[in-house]
Amino acid sequence: MSLRHSTLKDAAPEAVREVIRTGQYIGHTAGLCPGRLQANLVILPDVLALDFMRFCQRNPRACPLVGVSDTGAPHIDVLGDFDLRTDLPAYNVYRDGVLADSLNDISGLWRDDLVAFALGCSFTFEAALQAAGIALWHIENDTTVPMFRSAIRARTAGPFAGPVVVSMRAIPLARLDDVRTISARFPHAHGAPVHVGDPAQIGIADLSRPDWGDPALVPPGHVPVFWACGVTPQAAIAAARPSLCITHKPGHMLITDIPDQAEALDILDLPSSHPSQQERLT
Amino acid sequence: MSLRHSTLKDAAPEAVREVIRTGQYIGHTAGLCPGRLQANLVILPDVLALDFMRFCQRNPRACPLVGVSDTGAPHIDVLGDFDLRTDLPAYNVYRDGVLADSLNDISGLWRDDLVAFALGCSFTFEAALQAAGIALWHIENDTTVPMFRSAIRARTAGPFAGPVVVSMRAIPLARLDDVRTISARFPHAHGAPVHVGDPAQIGIADLSRPDWGDPALVPPGHVPVFWACGVTPQAAIAAARPSLCITHKPGHMLITDIPDQAEALDILDLPSSHPSQQERLT
Repeated sequence: MSLRHSTLKDAAPEAVREVIRTGQYIGHTAGLCPGRLQANLVILPDVLALDFMRFCQRNPRACPLVGVSDTGAPHIDVLGDFDLRTDLPAYNVYRDGVLADSLNDISGLWRDDLVAFALGCSFTFEAALQAAGIALWHIENDTTVPMFRSAIRARTAGPFAGPVVVSMRAIPLARLDDVRTISARFPHAHGAPVHVGDPAQIGIADLSRPDWGDPALVPPGHVPVFWACGVTPQAAIAAARPSLCITHKPGHMLITDIPDQAEALDILDLPSSHPSQQERLT
Repeated sequence: MSLRHSTLKDAAPEAVREVIRTGQYIGHTAGLCPGRLQANLVILPDVLALDFMRFCQRNPRACPLVGVSDTGAPHIDVLGDFDLRTDLPAYNVYRDGVLADSLNDISGLWRDDLVAFALGCSFTFEAALQAAGIALWHIENDTTVPMFRSAIRARTAGPFAGPVVVSMRAIPLARLDDVRTISARFPHAHGAPVHVGDPAQIGIADLSRPDWGDPALVPPGHVPVFWACGVTPQAAIAAARPSLCITHKPGHMLITDIPDQAEALDILDLPSSHPSQQERLT
């Protein structure tokens, strides 16, 4: 009944989502559908949607918005043909800001007042770094990237407030410029690093004790490099304590049809200047 | 009493806004505060704010959102220290989608339920093109850039719908690649062109008859190049017929403190990784 990750590795997004939708796969999505954008998911009642959207707009490195649903609609057409209630392998359900449940299907929780937000994730620039020959320790060692609450505060919007959470990757000194240039090409996936070097300068006392994820080595000749992280909205949601909030379960992302390496606006806007193609996407 | 444009040309943003705020200048802002980002302004009641923000998110080339106010707050701190009710030289007031008034101060109309949106404008990439030695006919000839309703439809959000309005600039064939590359650097100011060449392909029958602005020549050796235009939201607002909508009067923009040539996220996010600088902006 339950399919293995390796079985799905080269399947198309619609095929993988079908398998997930029918309950045949509930595992993580890292490495699935290479070349397709994966996204963080945040679902909130509409009374909080404008404030959360302002939070994303004001903190675009941490919360790069790639799609927003209509109110009550469990899909985001521009990103692909999927049902947000069933097409992710696992969800976390928060009540009053506290994790209350983890589910593989949220059809029973869906309401007409819910708004879904898709946010870019680090898989995008990690794939580009690896393609440029830059090894990433946490991937080579099959661990979760280390994440830290930084002393950088996110810009506030309504009840949404908190620290910018950052992820750390050790980069060879000789590749620092490449890493900046490559990741800057993906503003919809956290963009360029927010800090390079001494962790203490952004309020991180001990690199070996991440707030989320696993510790990672900084080998000799390497420098710790920090990116704004998609866990930032989770911290803000915990602060806002919405009556209901549903997110993807970490690592169990929304798989979209969008090319992973699309740059900047191309992901969101006119795929072609030709009206017939544009209308197809509208 | 009334100051001339030439008197203000080299003044700092805060000085120009002070002069405007006190009613001493009510003219257009083109060419003022060179090097600073100018923005389109759209003010709507909060009941429409989420849909309008979705419209911007789904049409980022036409509606590049650079800032959103808190509900009821006539300022957008991250863009500068200004009062949106008084610091633009002129405003248009729309009731039920129809132009009802033009004012130089909207203090009397401000309400606790209003939300203000600042959208990037073409001044940004035009300055960059000129700096690269690319002459723009409408600027050389002191006319308004020609704008057209295209056959490309904007992505809809709630009641906001309509055509993508495009502006046309004639570019020397030899500089086409430069123009694409340069304007693509400014996704917050309409980004790369949406179409190059034959106007008919995007539904424009006659280049000499723009829907807004003045006709412009396409000299021999030049190609018409089309960018998504900040008039797109005006067409969508006419369709949505909000009870109240206030915008800048065309050409009479919001002058921000933000460097005009800032690229992509730098305009909106961490100016520095150092917490003390970040907190100052929060």
